[in-house]
Amino acid sequence: MVRSPKKIKSATKSKAPQEVLMMATPSKSADLRWFSGFNASDPFPAFSAQGRKIGLLPLLEVGRAEDESDFDEVLNLSAIITDLRKTNPAAGLADAIVYAALQNSVQRFRVPADFPVGLYERLRELGLELTPLGAQRDERSSPELFPARWIKNKAELAGIRAGNAAACAGFSVIEKILAAATPDRKGRLLWLGKLLTAEILKEEAQVAILRAGALCDIGMICAPGDQAVDCHCSGSGPISTHQLIVVDIFPRHRASQNYGDMTRTYLKGKANTKQRNLVHAVLEAQRRAIKAIRAGVTGAAVHDVVVKYFKSMGYKTDLVDGVYTGFFHGTGHGLGFDIHEEPALSVRNPKPLVIGNAVTVEPGLYYPGIGACRMEDCVVVTKRGCELLSHHPYNWEIA
Amino acid sequence: MVRSPKKIKSATKSKAPQEVLMMATPSKSADLRWFSGFNASDPFPAFSAQGRKIGLLPLLEVGRAEDESDFDEVLNLSAIITDLRKTNPAAGLADAIVYAALQNSVQRFRVPADFPVGLYERLRELGLELTPLGAQRDERSSPELFPARWIKNKAELAGIRAGNAAACAGFSVIEKILAAATPDRKGRLLWLGKLLTAEILKEEAQVAILRAGALCDIGMICAPGDQAVDCHCSGSGPISTHQLIVVDIFPRHRASQNYGDMTRTYLKGKANTKQRNLVHAVLEAQRRAIKAIRAGVTGAAVHDVVVKYFKSMGYKTDLVDGVYTGFFHGTGHGLGFDIHEEPALSVRNPKPLVIGNAVTVEPGLYYPGIGACRMEDCVVVTKRGCELLSHHPYNWEIA
Repeated sequence: MVRSPKKIKSATKSKAPQEVLMMATPSKSADLRWFSGFNASDPFPAFSAQGRKIGLLPLLEVGRAEDESDFDEVLNLSAIITDLRKTNPAAGLADAIVYAALQNSVQRFRVPADFPVGLYERLRELGLELTPLGAQRDERSSPELFPARWIKNKAELAGIRAGNAAACAGFSVIEKILAAATPDRKGRLLWLGKLLTAEILKEEAQVAILRAGALCDIGMICAPGDQAVDCHCSGSGPISTHQLIVVDIFPRHRASQNYGDMTRTYLKGKANTKQRNLVHAVLEAQRRAIKAIRAGVTGAAVHDVVVKYFKSMGYKTDLVDGVYTGFFHGTGHGLGFDIHEEPALSVRNPKPLVIGNAVTVEPGLYYPGIGACRMEDCVVVTKRGCELLSHHPYNWEIA
Repeated sequence: MVRSPKKIKSATKSKAPQEVLMMATPSKSADLRWFSGFNASDPFPAFSAQGRKIGLLPLLEVGRAEDESDFDEVLNLSAIITDLRKTNPAAGLADAIVYAALQNSVQRFRVPADFPVGLYERLRELGLELTPLGAQRDERSSPELFPARWIKNKAELAGIRAGNAAACAGFSVIEKILAAATPDRKGRLLWLGKLLTAEILKEEAQVAILRAGALCDIGMICAPGDQAVDCHCSGSGPISTHQLIVVDIFPRHRASQNYGDMTRTYLKGKANTKQRNLVHAVLEAQRRAIKAIRAGVTGAAVHDVVVKYFKSMGYKTDLVDGVYTGFFHGTGHGLGFDIHEEPALSVRNPKPLVIGNAVTVEPGLYYPGIGACRMEDCVVVTKRGCELLSHHPYNWEIA
């Protein structure tokens, strides 16, 4: 939709420029992926002008961008540079951006906090007025760049659901393997005549996830026993009976480029009382957090439900011999084109959730000697509550 | 190794600061991946100080960074911020970086051209002197940041070889499927009773690549017929007999995080004369380019060998009805932690190759009506020539 001239004028008067300029790689930058509706593995510039989206694509990407992207106009970056060099042999990317911006009557842009500084300096020398968003913030990204990115549309929600469906294909394979595996005399599991390892479980899960249309492009976690107490440990080595195994799968749905993110915790054999209580506490904490989520409730308030529940059950959070134990991470995070997005369900987010926010809900407990348990699902915030974007059983104890 | 004070003094006198400061995500930034020897999916700052590498890691990554990274010192970013907030409640990431830099007696840094501008502005307010590298350049990355990144060590070469070995597993699967497939009455291939599509070939190849320890994290190309004339088209739909099929596989080796990059072109059935001549010309061009590569020869000179050969064979490069035809891309590019790195084998690279450069060699020809052919292997530059980093047959015509 093209804005009226009146609106442009009032926009120009406001403090921060209305128009946005980006220079990024869609496969690495969720902002540009969202803005352009285009996937590519090399960087290119893009900007907004009076409600239109304009991309400057290298020669080899122009055709595909015209077919596949949301750009209202795709400019041939290579051709512009070639033209400019007829009068200025030193012309390059920055000159092409300035040319395209002025052609569209825009000289002032907001740029995200992660805009590349080299190009920023050059564009300012060439006369563009650039206002970095979030210059005073601590984070690299600029959540204020596209507030609409945190309100998911139907296609994005379908993408997150599809990513989660692929994750479930991974869980199902792991459950089948654990059910089929048998212990040796030391309690280590054997599968198809070989020692069953975290590496094997991850490979089999990833094959199933690939066949379900998604890709574990930033890996996955399958961490047995005390390995999982470090909640970012990817996991390795033999799997044994009677130990908790945390499996966290966060695949990117290929067609939509949205991430899913789910965690299940398993145990082959028979859990002891401490393990069983741990799992039950985490499941109950997750149930309570999901119940607390609705538009208007802050991310911090949802997190507090989990913190208070664990405390009431006697689960302490502490630094013990340099190892964080108990519940020491956030309850959840937004997800979509990025695996970690706004809004956070943590002490750091005093803002109310709004309808359309998609977040993970992933309480966990971590104690050396007992092991770890995390259970994670995704929900979309609705007016009166939330709706699950992930569905998989919690049959954690596998005979 | 700690530099002597004498050296620090002379370094301080030079124009650009010796020390480097980065803020990036290793899984997205090949520079930080190379510098830190660490893989992570969230951003963190890192810098050099008197020959030492220092990383500021968030709480949950400190332990893993201490175990797995090349950092000489891993600082707990979360703990530093907590400490600083005792006297300055507004302290954050930028303050922690300044604190850690001054603790290490460094106030002046080079930053890469893609350093985030928001943090850059804040750090300058707080008193750091930052010099963006490549501010005058057109490219987003800063090839001058770590010139040593373009000279591969043994582990990196092994990683590229492993990435290519995984690509070969993909080619082998595709060759087997094409051999087993049979045409229907319209010439469309059937496999296991179903219409064979580019999507199926890609899925089967990617499963084999995954099992070979690598991941197609930025996709792959399997483009039949005229689809492949757009050399970035990923490819889709049914595969037919007697058409050229370009298969470009660029998987990332999981353990080393290095990319492989190979292309083979296939044809199921019988090629016509034009197709056969096209393939033979590309194979001969690749042979000549590989023969031309050695330390001291420029990237442009290698490219020129291919351009001249195609010209001598009568293959014209032109813009025909808005479609680029002939040979319109570079002959090759560096690869490693990034899929596209320095040095380029193209008109744009007047610099001589040096021992240890790893590059792709991928001439191609593209003509609507005939189709496309590209053949791609990787080599490492040696004193007298180059060594192949990829090995796979060129049996392109499949009965």
